[in-house]
Amino acid sequence: MSTAKTRIAICAPGKRLEQEHADAVRELVADDAAIELEFHPQCFASHGHFAGTDAERMGALVECANDSGFDAVWFANGGYGSNRIAAEAVAQLGAAARSKRYVGYSDAGFLLAALYRAGIGSPAHGPMVGDIRREGGAEAVRRSLDFLSGGVGGFEPSLDGHPAAAFNLMTLAMLCGTDLMPDLTRHVVMVEEVSEHLYAVDRLFFHIAQHLRGAAGLRLGRIGDVPENDRPFGMTEEEIARFWCEKAGIEYLGRADIGHDGANRVVPFGLAARARSQ
Amino acid sequence: MSTAKTRIAICAPGKRLEQEHADAVRELVADDAAIELEFHPQCFASHGHFAGTDAERMGALVECANDSGFDAVWFANGGYGSNRIAAEAVAQLGAAARSKRYVGYSDAGFLLAALYRAGIGSPAHGPMVGDIRREGGAEAVRRSLDFLSGGVGGFEPSLDGHPAAAFNLMTLAMLCGTDLMPDLTRHVVMVEEVSEHLYAVDRLFFHIAQHLRGAAGLRLGRIGDVPENDRPFGMTEEEIARFWCEKAGIEYLGRADIGHDGANRVVPFGLAARARSQ
Repeated sequence: MSTAKTRIAICAPGKRLEQEHADAVRELVADDAAIELEFHPQCFASHGHFAGTDAERMGALVECANDSGFDAVWFANGGYGSNRIAAEAVAQLGAAARSKRYVGYSDAGFLLAALYRAGIGSPAHGPMVGDIRREGGAEAVRRSLDFLSGGVGGFEPSLDGHPAAAFNLMTLAMLCGTDLMPDLTRHVVMVEEVSEHLYAVDRLFFHIAQHLRGAAGLRLGRIGDVPENDRPFGMTEEEIARFWCEKAGIEYLGRADIGHDGANRVVPFGLAARARSQ
Repeated sequence: MSTAKTRIAICAPGKRLEQEHADAVRELVADDAAIELEFHPQCFASHGHFAGTDAERMGALVECANDSGFDAVWFANGGYGSNRIAAEAVAQLGAAARSKRYVGYSDAGFLLAALYRAGIGSPAHGPMVGDIRREGGAEAVRRSLDFLSGGVGGFEPSLDGHPAAAFNLMTLAMLCGTDLMPDLTRHVVMVEEVSEHLYAVDRLFFHIAQHLRGAAGLRLGRIGDVPENDRPFGMTEEEIARFWCEKAGIEYLGRADIGHDGANRVVPFGLAARARSQ
């Protein structure tokens, strides 16, 4: 950004944000005159599983994105629920939404996908406000703040001349074939997962590999917190990825430095990485 | 069947079968001169998560299906793994496989789908050998044995003039858009689930509803053993089904008498129910 100050609007399309996590991130940037954070009150709303009703979550997202007073929209948390509002929200976005950066991951991947499909703004997979709770959370949050301010310091290191996209594996599986799914032909697609059994990871790979035919390749992020099963699966996570990539004719490109953890890096969708690193 | 005896071949495309469950089902039919069960040795094989390697499981399935000495193939267990062998197995099926009935559910739904898509035999969702362990397991197993012998006594009661299909919700979600997925246009589709959080059920419905456009309607089986979450989801399972059906323009037809339990009924794929009940 060429402006002196980056104004970032924060909303919660899925799970509500804890006040203490908002406070911790506010404190982190308190001395940074170049960053201004605006937490939409909807971040702290609650309705069943969600940070407010579908209408509340959609309203806040549309408000943040369409406000020309903000340079970027940062998603507060994952959880679940952004798929319930993504299509309708994106349909309501106007001119001011098109020049913004958007950052989130996990459940927020539904929104990144929908924005990227619609060609709106610069969506990127990256740490969220709620990640401040993790070990290495401050560094994680700084990576996203850097991207939201126009920096490239938090980029996933393998990013190259190919257009890229990154998703939670389950989120990508649920996106496949829906009206939120972008065209990922010739993209390097990175996936990560957390708290799923390896048999479920294998099953998800069966699904996504068939939908990713035509991709430039796949990179495997971290598969974290795999629950113990009553019997070992018999293949490692990387053997699983290689197996299904080979079946679908997708090149397996190795690991990606993304995951549900403090080390999670920023993956701008499309050719953003190439444009900025040249 | 017009033959005096129904010869049923049993194999395990996913999880291995416990010997005690095989014994219990053998005992159940010991006095029934009209039924002959043949457990393929592969049922008891073990390889990591599975009842033998992919090659062993596929080999047993193809052997059972292509053997003209059998009238039907019964899947021993669900678990996970039939998607890893379904496409290759179905490609190897010959004439003798085309006149057989096939019964299973849960993970075996990948095979039912692939068989139905290929127009091979009469696949049906119904109890498996391993269900003998459940409360009401003997009755469950008898329902499938009845269907495998040509009976209609175990049919799901709502079956009508529409072609039908029934799936575990996760299995159906993983099938959507893959090379195993049959055309379910104008079908009544029944779904059931077990051991998934309601938010995950909602997410699965988001996915399948978009893929089922053109279906005659959807029926909701039992959503069993829902794990407790840190907060209530805020919608019941039926509200979830109605919500996504309405979004996708699919008629919600009410409940179906299927599930991961002893009450699970038989749902023959296609028009089998109409043909037999007229």
